[in-house]
Amino acid sequence: MTTADVHLIVCGTVYTGGQQGTIIEEGGVAVAGDTIQAIASASALEEQYPGAEVLELGRGLVMPGLINVHTHAPMALMRGLADDLPLMTWLQEHIFPVEGRLTPELITLGTNLSALEMIKSGTTSFCDMYLFAKDVARAAASSGLRAWVGEVLYDFPSPNYGELDNGFVYMEEMFAEFAEHSRITVTANAHAIYTCSPDLLVRLKQQAVDHNSRYIIHLAETQAEVDGAMRQFAKRPVAHLDGLGLLDSSLVADHCVVLSSEEIALMAERGVNVAHCPESNMKLASGVAPIPALLEAGVTVGLGTDGAASNNDVDMFGEMDSAAKLQKVHNLDPTLLNAKQTLDMATMGGARLLGAADAIGSLEVGKKADMIVLDLDQPHLTPLYSIPSHLVYSATGADVVHSVINGHIVMRDRQVTTIDEHEVLAKCRGAVEVLIR
Amino acid sequence: MTTADVHLIVCGTVYTGGQQGTIIEEGGVAVAGDTIQAIASASALEEQYPGAEVLELGRGLVMPGLINVHTHAPMALMRGLADDLPLMTWLQEHIFPVEGRLTPELITLGTNLSALEMIKSGTTSFCDMYLFAKDVARAAASSGLRAWVGEVLYDFPSPNYGELDNGFVYMEEMFAEFAEHSRITVTANAHAIYTCSPDLLVRLKQQAVDHNSRYIIHLAETQAEVDGAMRQFAKRPVAHLDGLGLLDSSLVADHCVVLSSEEIALMAERGVNVAHCPESNMKLASGVAPIPALLEAGVTVGLGTDGAASNNDVDMFGEMDSAAKLQKVHNLDPTLLNAKQTLDMATMGGARLLGAADAIGSLEVGKKADMIVLDLDQPHLTPLYSIPSHLVYSATGADVVHSVINGHIVMRDRQVTTIDEHEVLAKCRGAVEVLIR
Repeated sequence: MTTADVHLIVCGTVYTGGQQGTIIEEGGVAVAGDTIQAIASASALEEQYPGAEVLELGRGLVMPGLINVHTHAPMALMRGLADDLPLMTWLQEHIFPVEGRLTPELITLGTNLSALEMIKSGTTSFCDMYLFAKDVARAAASSGLRAWVGEVLYDFPSPNYGELDNGFVYMEEMFAEFAEHSRITVTANAHAIYTCSPDLLVRLKQQAVDHNSRYIIHLAETQAEVDGAMRQFAKRPVAHLDGLGLLDSSLVADHCVVLSSEEIALMAERGVNVAHCPESNMKLASGVAPIPALLEAGVTVGLGTDGAASNNDVDMFGEMDSAAKLQKVHNLDPTLLNAKQTLDMATMGGARLLGAADAIGSLEVGKKADMIVLDLDQPHLTPLYSIPSHLVYSATGADVVHSVINGHIVMRDRQVTTIDEHEVLAKCRGAVEVLIR
Repeated sequence: MTTADVHLIVCGTVYTGGQQGTIIEEGGVAVAGDTIQAIASASALEEQYPGAEVLELGRGLVMPGLINVHTHAPMALMRGLADDLPLMTWLQEHIFPVEGRLTPELITLGTNLSALEMIKSGTTSFCDMYLFAKDVARAAASSGLRAWVGEVLYDFPSPNYGELDNGFVYMEEMFAEFAEHSRITVTANAHAIYTCSPDLLVRLKQQAVDHNSRYIIHLAETQAEVDGAMRQFAKRPVAHLDGLGLLDSSLVADHCVVLSSEEIALMAERGVNVAHCPESNMKLASGVAPIPALLEAGVTVGLGTDGAASNNDVDMFGEMDSAAKLQKVHNLDPTLLNAKQTLDMATMGGARLLGAADAIGSLEVGKKADMIVLDLDQPHLTPLYSIPSHLVYSATGADVVHSVINGHIVMRDRQVTTIDEHEVLAKCRGAVEVLIR
């Protein structure tokens, strides 16, 4: 790599994240292609790479982009459609009827809506499970975001692919379509143990192994799911998956609210990854996931927002705040899930969960250039004693001003460069009549 | 009131709040002096009052300003100073040493910092308990905010007034200084039953009665407080106050986390008001206040952020979100504290708690002109199915663009008109060295 290859230097107070959380005042991150080439003082980098574009902000904080490890992006179209209802009423009377009316065009629109919100609130990578996943992945690709995407499979006919066999074909096509994509990674997704037969689960495992992909499933989200598993399989959810040979380090288990200590130990032994979604778990009254015990056992935990229909936003800054506070009050211990641990969950935790710890999650030379710049020159971020404290307990997504993903500027001065925001919002307002006609 | 008296018309989608929550598309609120003169269609008002200034916003939502019923504004200077610690370590090793260094100048600075954050995040009224309260009240007065303010009293010498007798003198002076102020109301404040002798509590009650003021106290915040009361007084906190004749409709009890059903019934019978601070209760691991039971019993409940040192922000939009979600997950019931109830708590609930239900808390002709305008033209607020849902679950303080208090524009296009933000933030950064030297 020569000097000429550096095309961008992102300047401000640099917080590298990662284990050390190094702070460089008046620092800069030099980007060559999609990769971080150097991290040093801004003036040294500007001298060394005089031709590079300088992206900066007075009192800006340059930090790793946040990683949202579980969402359903197109559900942004259903944000606030129905709230404060029992889960089954919400799903069956409000969400399912709308999902029956979805089209590839609406999926693209909803993904663009969520992508706008994610970019504007500091997320640079997300992991998505939904219907019409090719359209989700294509919209994610053009949004500039880094994404892990897969079609959700279950036993009953899908509004997208119809019968299950077609779902496996659809997934094969999807693995092929994005095999060489620089930012889109395809994943295998089973909805849950109560909607997927053991046959489906095992068949999907083979497909995941064939493509060396992550295997994602909603797991142990509610006590009702655990009770159902005991009735149907005479096993708790984690044991059920273990019996099918699915419990390994490629598994991403979403939610994991209701776990026994035996299940936690087994997950740690097998290297299972957990996607923690505290705000959705709160709003749907699912319960409080045992995150301190999972971390103590050595389980990799990432942070996710779940879909905007059950949150009702995809702001990872708010999610960090809720994650930290919820554990403290639930366990009556203010020392649990401190600011640094929580920030790590939303960055390196997510990177490890996705099998991308060598590529994203912290600012390091050789990693992908995924970073955001926050405006610290605001009342709620002044004065500054601790960067992790401010990021977890005081900042919101609205503090993010610039965003760089894979070396490209996807947001500059709060304007997303990759999506026509005005057009997307207008179309979303128009879509309401179609969705709830 | 004649046509000429209307000086301002605030236009957008008007959401009146209050019990009805009326929505007027393309509506307007006409302001004469400090008072709402008319609420109607924007075009009709502009025709009727042609000389008035029009404050508007494309896709703006005009709504009642939020009421923060419990905070310690100057503690914004200590935001993020120390986190994730046991309460007594946090207080004794970090907060108290800093409080010993406070001066009237630092109190003014901290109040201005908090006032900036409150105005920018949609709060128009706040209730404050702290040291050097005259300086808090003076800063609040010049900020344009509406405020209820009082000096906190306790048995030990105060960094402000010294011995307790001086505290009562200080309060008399304060009642006199603000007796005629249009926006500042003085309140009587006892710190807590574990820091205030029965003599202090009863003596302060007389002063509150003399001035017909609210009587405010931290009450039943933790199990440790309840245990202490049982040891010291052989009574739970609420019964202790009742025995001293303090339990009436002028009482504002902050926190109320640990209550028995008998205490809830007694509070309802006496008309006691409760200030609910969910995020502080979460972060300090105090517990979850029984808000659904209090509301069911008919107790007036307002919403507060507590100080920024234990939250770590004073954003009432985030507080509403946390309040609603926390009750659902704690009680495993997603129907508890729905969006409208939560929004009411942050508006009319606060107004009733402060004894100002006829003046603030909703947009009604004859009430004070306290209102905010939010920008709905954003990804996280699109599409719009329900205004209360978006305000509670999706909006943040950063969505507030304009603010009007007592008929005056205190923020226009996110620029606070009453405080020099740049100067205050610079001084706050400089104050750190003094505070933690």
